[in-house]
Amino acid sequence: MGATLDPIGTIHTPFATKDDAPIQGAFHPENEGTVELFPEFVEGLADIDGFTHLILLYEFDRAAPVEMRRQTFLGDEPHGLWATRHPARPNGIGLTVVRLLGREGASLCVGGIDVLDSTPLLDIKPYIPRFDSFPEASEGWLAGRAERPKPPGRE
Amino acid sequence: MGATLDPIGTIHTPFATKDDAPIQGAFHPENEGTVELFPEFVEGLADIDGFTHLILLYEFDRAAPVEMRRQTFLGDEPHGLWATRHPARPNGIGLTVVRLLGREGASLCVGGIDVLDSTPLLDIKPYIPRFDSFPEASEGWLAGRAERPKPPGRE
Repeated sequence: MGATLDPIGTIHTPFATKDDAPIQGAFHPENEGTVELFPEFVEGLADIDGFTHLILLYEFDRAAPVEMRRQTFLGDEPHGLWATRHPARPNGIGLTVVRLLGREGASLCVGGIDVLDSTPLLDIKPYIPRFDSFPEASEGWLAGRAERPKPPGRE
Repeated sequence: MGATLDPIGTIHTPFATKDDAPIQGAFHPENEGTVELFPEFVEGLADIDGFTHLILLYEFDRAAPVEMRRQTFLGDEPHGLWATRHPARPNGIGLTVVRLLGREGASLCVGGIDVLDSTPLLDIKPYIPRFDSFPEASEGWLAGRAERPKPPGRE
């Protein structure tokens, strides 16, 4: 199709490098960042303050080349790419659920962020438990894999 | 940035038109569809069968022009676009959580699908409750809005 991605804003975080960033935002809800929308998209933030959680879609703009099987932070054995959240994937779209802590004009303060500083933002969707929360879902090969230090040289 | 989107496959569903499709997949878990990957991406499906739920990212390829405030299926009053799941949004990326019912080669049978037939697939991510499930999240302006017949002429 060849539709193009044009960022709607920028995500600012304390994570300048891949080594700085946490494995997943949910492991570290204390990490805060700022989501800054470009001016032409600010009007669309109306009514967003009623939500406690947001889904951010963003560009994995510093990912390695795509491979169909990958080691991951939580698994030393390679897994099929679609069974992982590895950043090096076709179309390079990342997804993370954050807590909305506050809004000031074009800026949203969010908690539980895990992306690199200056990440291009592609979309904001309200997180709606009826549509998005499935606590009974299985964890596949991730079951029982606890957070651990990142293996060196991996992303 | 201008990164381009190239579909990795196609989603087949019983919904030929916007009027046919449900408001949200979660309202109708009985609706089944097929996710068909293009051959070069099939190897990446290894290990996916351990997951009960998947996140599909897809292209809203038949959406109306973008506006920053919108009426929606569940609300007659306009809301800021980023506080809605309306399909007409910059970058046009849709997100839905489906149940994985089975796999046969390049095809995944999924339940709770809500997209139009022949929708271009952009990504598959495993749904992992530790990262993705927040049952305590608020529903913002959607609180208490039950499923209802779609208002005519809306999307």
